[in-house]
Amino acid sequence: MADKINGIDIRILKLLSKNARLTYKELAEILGTTRQRISRRMDRLERNGVIKKYTVIPDYDALGYVHVILGITVKPSVNIDEIIPTLVEDENIKIIQRAIGSHSLVIHIVGPKDMKELEKIISEVSRKIPGIDTLDITFVTETVKFEVL
Amino acid sequence: MADKINGIDIRILKLLSKNARLTYKELAEILGTTRQRISRRMDRLERNGVIKKYTVIPDYDALGYVHVILGITVKPSVNIDEIIPTLVEDENIKIIQRAIGSHSLVIHIVGPKDMKELEKIISEVSRKIPGIDTLDITFVTETVKFEVL
Repeated sequence: MADKINGIDIRILKLLSKNARLTYKELAEILGTTRQRISRRMDRLERNGVIKKYTVIPDYDALGYVHVILGITVKPSVNIDEIIPTLVEDENIKIIQRAIGSHSLVIHIVGPKDMKELEKIISEVSRKIPGIDTLDITFVTETVKFEVL
Repeated sequence: MADKINGIDIRILKLLSKNARLTYKELAEILGTTRQRISRRMDRLERNGVIKKYTVIPDYDALGYVHVILGITVKPSVNIDEIIPTLVEDENIKIIQRAIGSHSLVIHIVGPKDMKELEKIISEVSRKIPGIDTLDITFVTETVKFEVL
C-alpha cells in the first residue's frame, strides 16, 4: 500500500518533533537521502493527516498568560458531538480533546494571569457545556518536559 | 529593555504557532519587514526561552499509538522536585507538567495500543511516583482542536 507509514516516515517525524524547522536539505543530509524524497514523504504525511500541524511550544508565563486544563465528565445523556462546534469557535479554548477514562473531554485554556478575568473565562466555557458532571481545573505552573515522539 | 517581548514578537509567534515551518523570508513578507529583523527576533525568543520548541503535532492513532494523560495528586509530604529527574529520563513519558489545582502533576504517555502492554507502562510510571494520592487516567480518543496562541 503506497500510503503506509514506513521507517523513513517515522525517522522524519522524530526529527521534526525535535525541530520542526529543519529544512528538506537538512533532513535529507541527516537521513542520507534526497530532498525530493523527504519533500514527497512529508507532503504525503501532511495530506494523510499524520502530521496535523507544525507549531511552536511557547513559555506562556513569559508571555503573560496562564495555561489551564479542564478535565470534564458529562452526564450519560449528553451528546458531546453537539457541544463541540460551539467550543471550537471559542478563542479562549486552544485545545479540545475527546477522551474516555477519568475525563470525557479535555479542554486547554490560555488566559490572562488576572484571576478574576480568568474565572470569568472558565465559567463562560463551562456554561457552554450542558450536563457537566465533574470539572477538574488544573493550572500548569511549569512544563518540565515536552516531547512528541 | 532590549529583551522585552514586543508586538512584532507576538505576531511572529502567532504565525509560527499556525505553521512553524514558515521561512524568515515568508515571515518577513507577511509582516512587512526584513528577514534580518525576523531572524534577530526569533533568535532572541529562542535564547530567552519564550520559544521552547518547534515541533510537529502528529495523529498518534494513525501511527499506532495511544495518548494517555495521567492527572496526579500526591500526599502533602511528597517533594515533587525529587521525583522529576526519574520521570524526565523515562522514554514513555513525553510531557511532564507541574501544576496546582485538581492535579499537582500532569504526565502524558504515548504508548502502544495493546492494553496489556499499556497497563504495564502506566503502572511502571506510577511506581516511580511515591506518595500518589489520586491518579486520573484519561485516554485521548480525538484531538478536535489544537492551537497554541
